[in-house]
Order: sequence, then C-alpha cells, then structure tokens
Amino acid sequence: MSTHESRTNPTQSEGVRNLSPEDAWDRTRTMVVGRLAFSGGDRIELFPINYLVDRGTVLFRTAPGTKLAASMEHLPVVFEVDGYEAEANEAWSVVVHGVLEPVLDTSEIVEAVALPLFPWQSGEKAFFVRIVPAEVTGRQFRVADPSRWVSQFTGGPRASAE
Amino acid sequence: MSTHESRTNPTQSEGVRNLSPEDAWDRTRTMVVGRLAFSGGDRIELFPINYLVDRGTVLFRTAPGTKLAASMEHLPVVFEVDGYEAEANEAWSVVVHGVLEPVLDTSEIVEAVALPLFPWQSGEKAFFVRIVPAEVTGRQFRVADPSRWVSQFTGGPRASAE
Repeated sequence: MSTHESRTNPTQSEGVRNLSPEDAWDRTRTMVVGRLAFSGGDRIELFPINYLVDRGTVLFRTAPGTKLAASMEHLPVVFEVDGYEAEANEAWSVVVHGVLEPVLDTSEIVEAVALPLFPWQSGEKAFFVRIVPAEVTGRQFRVADPSRWVSQFTGGPRASAE
Repeated sequence: MSTHESRTNPTQSEGVRNLSPEDAWDRTRTMVVGRLAFSGGDRIELFPINYLVDRGTVLFRTAPGTKLAASMEHLPVVFEVDGYEAEANEAWSVVVHGVLEPVLDTSEIVEAVALPLFPWQSGEKAFFVRIVPAEVTGRQFRVADPSRWVSQFTGGPRASAE
C-alpha cells in the first residue's frame, strides 16, 4: 500500500475489508459485551453493556439512570462491539448507529425477561432498552501484532512505558 | 439492596465500587485495546483503538482521517477500557474524559516511535495522537453470571434468541 492510497482512502488499507450487514449481525450475536455512547448534554457518555441481539435490535437491561432516561428521549446512540479470531489472526469491529427505545409493551417485557440476558453487574436492572439500528457497519482486519491484542500486560517491553 | 436505593443512587448498587484514579490508571495500563468516542458533527463516532499509557495520557497511532482531524481541533473525547478478573469474578471499567491532541513535537514523535505501541491493523498509521485526560473514573463490580462475560456464544440457551 502506498502512502498516497493511505491518505486518500484510509479505510481501504491493506488487510481491511468491510463486512456485509448480515456478517456484522452474525458477529455481534457471538459477543455479550459491547460499548454504548451517546451525548450526555455537555459531553459524551460511554459505557460497557451486556447485550443480546433480539428482534433486529440490540437489547440490554438497565437500572433507572442515564441510559433509561436517554431511552425515554429516543436519543441517537452508537454501539460498538469487537472481537478477535485467533485462527485467522484477524480482528473485527461492528458499529451500530441508531436510537434508544425503552421496552414498555408488557408482552415484550415478558418475552425479554425470558431471554438469556444477564446484566454485567449484579445490581438490580429491571428495565429493558433497545438500540434500534439505523446503520450497521463492520470491518475485519489482520492484526499487526497478535500478542498486543490477545494478551494483557505481563511485564516485558511495555515496562519501559509509563 | 432496596429498589429505593437503586433509584436514588444506581452507581452504588451491590457489589460495585469506585476505583481510585491511581487504580484506574494501573488497570488501563494492563490493557491494549480501548474504545474512543467523539462527536463527528451530526453523530457520535465510536472506534476501537490500540493504545498505550504514556506521559499521563492515552497515546495511539492513526492514519490521516477522522481521528487525526479531530486531534487537530482538540476535540473533547471519551475513552473507555474494561477487563475481567477471573479469580475474583469481577469486571472493571475505566472511563477517561479529555481532549485529543496531535503529537507534533519532533522529539516527542521520536520517543513515541520507540514505544511498544502497535496499531491494531497493519495499515500505515504514521501519526500519534494523545487523549489528554480531564477526568478519570473507574468502577469494579462482581459479574452476575461470569459465563456471559468470558465466553463467546457457542450454542446453548442463546440459540433461542435471534
């Protein structure tokens, strides 16, 4: 890849390919923790969430607070999930832009309670919220140095950094 | 925990504790991939980034594009990283609010090149950008169902969901 290509179209760098929406959803279904961002007024809020793909949306549980309030306002949000495939030495990332919607319909709540969706933390999270997608994009790319992706810091070269 | 407590102070749910800034930085140093969000004009952009803690900032490499442009504008951003401690069955999340700054000083660039900071993907990423923190918060919490956190979907109960 030449510097010129990189400058004109950085998303088409060597080893990067876009995922089809179907592939992006399939990968999203394989994971259980993603990150949700939305505008919290004067700044952006970013949280990890434990989710499940349900009815073509990203469903999660929450306690009363910022996320539930945001869902009542149908706030635009972005959700991201990523993973690593050791055999292929490739990582992928899926980004969903959409809006938050509270689950208020009683029959939907009854169904949602039966889903295997466990909150990340054990505090009470009685409410269900959906990310209703407007756009789903995904990319897969070869990992430059797999050890940096899969392993946590266990001493060695990074000790010289702060 | 009563419902009342949950409503008045959801961050103090059972099993959740706040991390000191020092602890939050220590945990951030153990990971290599986090997620960066900032306003992209009409919507929020959210990316995974391969990072390193350096000089009290979160340093990453990037190609010309959205993130580099955002750094030139010193855009406010939020960065999140999380992890799981199997022995304790606890997960943690650190959130850094701050601004993006490009690394333009030649001696800083020379130093940054020597750091063990490998881009997530193998495309050329010639520029260094820092997240200069304004606020660092961290939380640790007991995982309700550890299998939902550590394992990928491999069939079983979730097959009934979409």
